[in-house]
Amino acid sequence: MASPEIDALTQALSRLPGLGPRSARRAVLHLLRKRETALDPLLRALAAVNERLVTCATCGNVDTSDPCGVCADPRRDARALCVVEDVADLWALDRSRLFPGRFHVLGGRLSALEGVRPEDLSIDLLVARVAAGGIDEVVLAMNATLEGQTTAHYLADRLEGYPVRLTQLAHGVPVGGELDYLDEGTLAQALRARRPLG
Amino acid sequence: MASPEIDALTQALSRLPGLGPRSARRAVLHLLRKRETALDPLLRALAAVNERLVTCATCGNVDTSDPCGVCADPRRDARALCVVEDVADLWALDRSRLFPGRFHVLGGRLSALEGVRPEDLSIDLLVARVAAGGIDEVVLAMNATLEGQTTAHYLADRLEGYPVRLTQLAHGVPVGGELDYLDEGTLAQALRARRPLG
Repeated sequence: MASPEIDALTQALSRLPGLGPRSARRAVLHLLRKRETALDPLLRALAAVNERLVTCATCGNVDTSDPCGVCADPRRDARALCVVEDVADLWALDRSRLFPGRFHVLGGRLSALEGVRPEDLSIDLLVARVAAGGIDEVVLAMNATLEGQTTAHYLADRLEGYPVRLTQLAHGVPVGGELDYLDEGTLAQALRARRPLG
Repeated sequence: MASPEIDALTQALSRLPGLGPRSARRAVLHLLRKRETALDPLLRALAAVNERLVTCATCGNVDTSDPCGVCADPRRDARALCVVEDVADLWALDRSRLFPGRFHVLGGRLSALEGVRPEDLSIDLLVARVAAGGIDEVVLAMNATLEGQTTAHYLADRLEGYPVRLTQLAHGVPVGGELDYLDEGTLAQALRARRPLG
C-alpha cells in the first residue's frame, strides 16, 4: 500500500515505547500532513541529537556535551552525589530540582536473573569518584525493587571505609496515595519508618 | 536539565498524536540508549521520507512517487473510484484490500464551523476526473458524521448528470459490535437499513 519508505518510517516509530503499529501509523500520517511543523522539526532534532550525542565520562549521563550539563554546572554542590540506576532516573530526579548535587549513573542494577554483575555496571568509576575525595554524602537512589535494594547494599559494602555519609531515599506512602490502593510492602515500610507528628 | 538538542527532540516527539510529554521522554530515552537499533533507523527513515515525499497530483494521496503507488498500479480497476476525506481513510480502506479501484482524497470535509468551503477541498479535480470519463462508479466514503454526510450530499449534487453510479458505505452495527453499547443513531440506521435474512 504505502511506499517502502513510509513503511520503514512506520516500523521505526512503532518500535518506540508507548507506540504500537496503529499509533505509529497515526503519527506517520501526522508527519506527512504537517511537513513544516512536524516532520521538519523532528528530523532536525533527531539529526542534531544523533550528531552530538555523547555519554558523560564522569557520571554516565547521556547528553550532547562531555562533561554533561549536570557535571559542568558550577552551581551544583560537588559534595553531594546521587547514584541512580539509569539515565531516566537521573532525569526524573533532576526535573524535580530538589537535589542540588551531582549524579552517577550505574547503567543498570545487579541482577542474578539477567546476569548483570558488578563489573557490568559503572561501579568502579563510582568508587574512584568517592576515593578521589571532596564528596560528603552519597545518596543511593536505587529503585525500591529487590534488585535495586540489592545493588544499594552492594554499593554500601564497596563504599565502606570512605569518609562519606551513605543515605537512601525514604520509602513510604507516596504523596497523594490512598492507603487502600497501596501494596502491603509499601504499607509495611511506611509503618516501620513512621515518624513523630509535627 | 537535558541539553537543548534533547529538549527539542522531546518536544518534537511530544507533538505527535498519541505521545504526550511523558511518553515522549520515554521515547527519547529509548532512542538515546539504543542508537544503532532505534535512533539510526528512525533518522534514516525520516530523512528518506522527507526527501521523497510528494502529493499525488491525480488523487491527492501522499506517497514517495507521483503518480502514487495506488494510481500507478495497473491491476486496479480504473472504473471504480472511492472518494475519501483524508489520506488516513485511504490507507484504512486500502489496508483491507477490499476495494479494487482507485481513490480520490478530498483533503477534508465541508464544515461551516471550521470555515471549510468547497473550494478548499479537491472537489474540482474530482469532477474533472469523473468528467474525463472511464469511471462507472463513485463510492462516497465520507465519515459517518454530520459534516461527512453533508460533504457526500454536496458531491452527489456536483456529480449529477455524469454517467456514474454514486454509492456510499453501508451504515449499521459494526462487526463484533454489541447493540447494548451502540449509540441510538447507529441503531436507528441499522434498523432502517435492515435486510432480509440469508
